[in-house]
Amino acid sequence: MKFEIKQEILMEHLNYVIKGVSSKNLRPILNCIKLSLTDDGLYLMSTDNEIAIKTFIPTEKIEKIETLGSIVVSGRYLFEIIRKLPNDIVKIEEVIDSKIFITTPNSSFNLNCNSVNEFPDLELEFNKNPLVINQRLFKTLINQTSFATSTQESRPVLTGISFNVENNLLECTATDSYRLSSKKIEINENYPEKVSIIIPTKNISELMKLFNNDEDDIEIHIFNNKIIFKFESIVFMSRLISGTYPDTSKLIPNEFSLIVKVNLDNFYRAIDRASLLTNEADKNTIKLETKGNIAIVSSNIPEIGNVEEKIEIEKDKEEEIKIAFSSKFMLDALRVLETNEIEICLNGELKPIILKNCDNNSLIELILPIRTF
Amino acid sequence: MKFEIKQEILMEHLNYVIKGVSSKNLRPILNCIKLSLTDDGLYLMSTDNEIAIKTFIPTEKIEKIETLGSIVVSGRYLFEIIRKLPNDIVKIEEVIDSKIFITTPNSSFNLNCNSVNEFPDLELEFNKNPLVINQRLFKTLINQTSFATSTQESRPVLTGISFNVENNLLECTATDSYRLSSKKIEINENYPEKVSIIIPTKNISELMKLFNNDEDDIEIHIFNNKIIFKFESIVFMSRLISGTYPDTSKLIPNEFSLIVKVNLDNFYRAIDRASLLTNEADKNTIKLETKGNIAIVSSNIPEIGNVEEKIEIEKDKEEEIKIAFSSKFMLDALRVLETNEIEICLNGELKPIILKNCDNNSLIELILPIRTF
Repeated sequence: MKFEIKQEILMEHLNYVIKGVSSKNLRPILNCIKLSLTDDGLYLMSTDNEIAIKTFIPTEKIEKIETLGSIVVSGRYLFEIIRKLPNDIVKIEEVIDSKIFITTPNSSFNLNCNSVNEFPDLELEFNKNPLVINQRLFKTLINQTSFATSTQESRPVLTGISFNVENNLLECTATDSYRLSSKKIEINENYPEKVSIIIPTKNISELMKLFNNDEDDIEIHIFNNKIIFKFESIVFMSRLISGTYPDTSKLIPNEFSLIVKVNLDNFYRAIDRASLLTNEADKNTIKLETKGNIAIVSSNIPEIGNVEEKIEIEKDKEEEIKIAFSSKFMLDALRVLETNEIEICLNGELKPIILKNCDNNSLIELILPIRTF
Repeated sequence: MKFEIKQEILMEHLNYVIKGVSSKNLRPILNCIKLSLTDDGLYLMSTDNEIAIKTFIPTEKIEKIETLGSIVVSGRYLFEIIRKLPNDIVKIEEVIDSKIFITTPNSSFNLNCNSVNEFPDLELEFNKNPLVINQRLFKTLINQTSFATSTQESRPVLTGISFNVENNLLECTATDSYRLSSKKIEINENYPEKVSIIIPTKNISELMKLFNNDEDDIEIHIFNNKIIFKFESIVFMSRLISGTYPDTSKLIPNEFSLIVKVNLDNFYRAIDRASLLTNEADKNTIKLETKGNIAIVSSNIPEIGNVEEKIEIEKDKEEEIKIAFSSKFMLDALRVLETNEIEICLNGELKPIILKNCDNNSLIELILPIRTF
């Protein structure tokens, strides 16, 4: 392998594949990037066994190609070296006894390579009819749900996002069993089969760091044990979590004994201030109590002090309610409800609190109350 | 104590004193802020026994004063509460059994207070003739030297900056015994006595976070066991380190066997790239070797690879040199030499490397070589 390329072009693509390089030192080959120079151009690949990333630079963006071939080299070192080279033409050349030279007029690096044969086969295949979604829409979908994912490895299925497709509806759900967030969107065409998979949330977060252009579309290719995203010059694969996701459809009631309307911003600020006098040991508990058209939010840490916040509300019935919940979970949920007014839907102090936009049901937030009264 | 004040005015001053609140939980009183409302205005004070900060809001910036008095309250809670309140009028009122109310139209906080008598006396006194220095100049002085301070507590004097005044010269020196940075500046008036003190570097870093305005002057009041800085509405005290600072004046020779001139930016980038193939276990060692008008910088990690960088140089003699040093120390030193061309002054491969601007000697950087050849 021998070629010359502009530093900034190589760097752009190293910025993508570096995110697939393992940061653990378990298998040295997973700390590597594979470069394959073919007649089409240069492929860059990385995998940590959780995700795999492949990106492509076509020949017309390569200054000079002398010999085709493949090499496997430490990802972190290659990345840092190219990053610190001047914005100039970089020569990369494989030399005998598995070494590469990386040179510019004043710099000359000599890096040891790993065996090309040891690098895992990435198995990046494609479906004939992928699901196609706009990048911005996909980002919103994930951002509005992923925060509710569990971080506890004791129930692996809850560390992922449940991703369900049926006809022209795509629904994502995440829950840690104390709160839940679920979002439905319409897709352009009916998808030919029913899909129900669980994608690891941390892999989806890595994927979203690669998005460059809100207006572009992503192709989503779904398989039994993996999901593949294709966009711009990038192919991104994530493994799936095996297991059955809990049936969350029955958790969200259709009828409520009381619906409270409130300005989202005022409510958020009041909860945020009240949360100052809560602590984690006490599950960040705060109380909400309605009194006519006013809600009182209160909390206290006995050694420090207490707080009361007043917020104007509108209720659909005369009924009053006292309910307690985690201020942290409430703030997380409020942060993704992008609207002016929200509905807090209640069925008494022991039943789930449902939050949603006043004008549509596409995003549903559920928080379990805490028994204190 | 009972008064009303604009949230943003109180917040500006809490932003200063919060930096003096202890983050350790050893003595709860050191986690507090003292507020004293007097006929002149409101004083805010904090101390962690290392530093003390006092700031002042004059009566004309206070909306309403009803009762004078003092309170001592948890700094972190007061800070966070005021920070999250809307930009509105905040009422603060001391109530019986050592509590304060903090209220706005919709929020009502009730905080427990500590005993005013337990709060340490800050002893913030002033000299008749302080040293006066421009903020920007003082910042440069500290930034160009402090990085060379030792972080090891085994020799306490080296964790501070040696601060020396004689006539109209102020000299700051820092060293960790492997490298040294020393800067001299002229002050406007002759200072009446000779000063030789050691200020803890971490305290000076806290002081510099309070600087708002490069053009303003700082008054420096020097005492036996403390140094006090006065600027804008702020008084900042730091304890001094007791002990004798090593005599560094003899370390810097007047004559050199070879002086190498180099473009600072090119040299920095070459060292920065070469440093990629060094490691801490090996003291980040890189080698420099002159060959006529070229210097070769090189380093290697046997398992990974090696690097050679070429840089154009000018020498004052025909002599060639091979010398090794820590790339980290070299980069730190180069970062503060604000110029285009520097002089690397050498006396053989085993003697200190001296770096300075070509056109003035006010800033001197010293790095000990590493014996490798």
